[in-house]
Amino acid sequence: MKKTIAMLPGDGIGKEVMQGAQEVLTVIAEQFGHEFIFTSGLIGGSAIDQRGIPLPPETLELCRNADALMLGAVGGPKWDGEPPENRPERGLLALRKELGLYANIRPVKAYECLTDHSPFKKSVLDGVDFVIVRELTGGLYFGKPSERSGKGGAESAVDTLFYTKEEVRRILTAAFEMAASRRNKVTSVDKANVLESSRMWRETAEEVKAGYPDVELEHMLVDNAAMQLIKNPAQFDVLVTENMFGDILSDEASVLTGSLGMLPSSSLSLNGLHLYEPVHGSAPDIAGENKANPLAMILSAAMMLRTSFGMEEEANAVERAVQLVLDAGKRTGDLAFENDHPLTTDEMIAEIKEGL
Amino acid sequence: MKKTIAMLPGDGIGKEVMQGAQEVLTVIAEQFGHEFIFTSGLIGGSAIDQRGIPLPPETLELCRNADALMLGAVGGPKWDGEPPENRPERGLLALRKELGLYANIRPVKAYECLTDHSPFKKSVLDGVDFVIVRELTGGLYFGKPSERSGKGGAESAVDTLFYTKEEVRRILTAAFEMAASRRNKVTSVDKANVLESSRMWRETAEEVKAGYPDVELEHMLVDNAAMQLIKNPAQFDVLVTENMFGDILSDEASVLTGSLGMLPSSSLSLNGLHLYEPVHGSAPDIAGENKANPLAMILSAAMMLRTSFGMEEEANAVERAVQLVLDAGKRTGDLAFENDHPLTTDEMIAEIKEGL
Ligand SMILES: CC(C)[C@H](C(=O)O)[C@@H](O)C(=O)O
Ligand SMILES: CC(C)[C@H](C(=O)O)[C@@H](O)C(=O)O
Repeated sequence: MKKTIAMLPGDGIGKEVMQGAQEVLTVIAEQFGHEFIFTSGLIGGSAIDQRGIPLPPETLELCRNADALMLGAVGGPKWDGEPPENRPERGLLALRKELGLYANIRPVKAYECLTDHSPFKKSVLDGVDFVIVRELTGGLYFGKPSERSGKGGAESAVDTLFYTKEEVRRILTAAFEMAASRRNKVTSVDKANVLESSRMWRETAEEVKAGYPDVELEHMLVDNAAMQLIKNPAQFDVLVTENMFGDILSDEASVLTGSLGMLPSSSLSLNGLHLYEPVHGSAPDIAGENKANPLAMILSAAMMLRTSFGMEEEANAVERAVQLVLDAGKRTGDLAFENDHPLTTDEMIAEIKEGL
Repeated sequence: MKKTIAMLPGDGIGKEVMQGAQEVLTVIAEQFGHEFIFTSGLIGGSAIDQRGIPLPPETLELCRNADALMLGAVGGPKWDGEPPENRPERGLLALRKELGLYANIRPVKAYECLTDHSPFKKSVLDGVDFVIVRELTGGLYFGKPSERSGKGGAESAVDTLFYTKEEVRRILTAAFEMAASRRNKVTSVDKANVLESSRMWRETAEEVKAGYPDVELEHMLVDNAAMQLIKNPAQFDVLVTENMFGDILSDEASVLTGSLGMLPSSSLSLNGLHLYEPVHGSAPDIAGENKANPLAMILSAAMMLRTSFGMEEEANAVERAVQLVLDAGKRTGDLAFENDHPLTTDEMIAEIKEGL
């Protein structure tokens, strides 16, 4: 197959880990007889530096012409002084909105071989295998007004959590679809005892559930969910929630896996153009030092192969290579113990390629 | 001293645990020569049942005439069918707003003797001793509009995160005051890379900090905070945040302590009339069965003695009694292991009174 992949490395370690994904995909293309065309665009802080804005129109254009999108990470202290409407994160938020990337999918699975790195007891991690489905283009992130007003003593600020029923139905449908191909359980997380938007969310969940007689639906308040995620994470199959709730809960859940450096994610649209990115950020403290863990980005590439291109075998090959390297005890610095000799980013990429 | 304490048992196990607090306070009054006058009011579901509304005016009146307030818990499935504006939780939210209980204080400390019950490795819990200061009368809980509109395909819902600068300054000041009497570190949690209200919050934190040269101020994004709380909780001293963020993060943090059944909280006003309540809810599944753990309510009474009445010695006596009982291995069902014989609520109350 011939596929065009838009690569948006972004800032910080984004470039280094993207390099890993591209090299791995290149080997996969050779081995399986595909042709991957890589295009590259600016986003985030590096776009601000070179083009003055965090999402230049040519980047958007490049994305629209691709079959799938890969993003590294955006942001860093360098751009903290930028006005709010011109910060690196705005590039990512605008990309999500412009391309209708409404469903952020984050698998949460504890890697057996990383439990030593986990703050949790082994018993808690047993059987943890769930997916968080986070609404990504609405809610508290995008509602209007979002502004400051007044001066001095009369100053105030407002943000808005707004959803249309259709937006809510769309994300819940994605969650039910996912559950139907997994263990048939949806946990819908809201704050229905306080928020009106959550009450609409809860009703809509019941309506969507009617179309999935085999899928169990459970409602959970967001404060309770924050507890349950770490007390008894094995209870979850598919957890679906509002944008901001999802931001918080999915970062919390990432701790279960032992390392942020391992976690891929996908952001899905309705028209088939999806984005893949690691859960970790731009890690400006280690950027450019050849220290970053490229595995989350590489596993995001595997997700892309499977989800966007239907290349199940190819995706498995990448995931198997990662597992092999981990089983062999090879680690980048984030996962190494004090007395180990951690691999550099380049070395880790080379190891994975060898395992393919 | 003579003090009037308004007791609002509320719903579910609220009545049972409140009984414990009252008995313990009665012993303390005898031992230390105080006079405590207990008044009692309806709130939540039981107020709906008996008076048709979750916060009857006579309850508010009773509170205003007291020196301190104790609340059990509100809510339960029995009232799920009530219209939103008449649910048990509305009683508690209205009480907070009416009485200006703007600062919810939750100490988070891992009980050494409960680490077997914790999902965390012991090493993570070492040195955990911090306080969450949650803004309680503004933010996403109270902003207007909070409403549904449209019908059918055009349906939508909105909630509003609104703060005046003064509200933000007030809660941040409470946090800095608290840090100044502890380990001099404030972690201010926001989502300044997305929300306008968070940007005002962050600026205000810097302004308040200027008055506390000895207190260190750190800003942390809420998603990162959800991670840090469970990766490295010992880093925190005072964590301060918005109402909804605080709801989520404080329930998450409660897991560190080993049991929700142990956690007291206070909600402070500027005029000196404060409320004390356990962090746990009304636990309808075990209500009326003499199984509930009364310790969170009893420890809330200790907080009241110290904070509202300045009775340091009396508060210490209560806390010591709780520690004694735990050290002796006595547990209610929530903390017992399978082969133990758990104490009933009444038995636990009796044990604590003996230890006073
Ligand atoms: C960078 C930031 C705007 C973003 C978000 O909050 O959505 C990030 O935290 C994420 O989760 O993808
Ligand atoms: C009962 C509910 C409205 C309340 C809240 O969300 O504030 C509770 O969860 C709490 O944390 O005190």
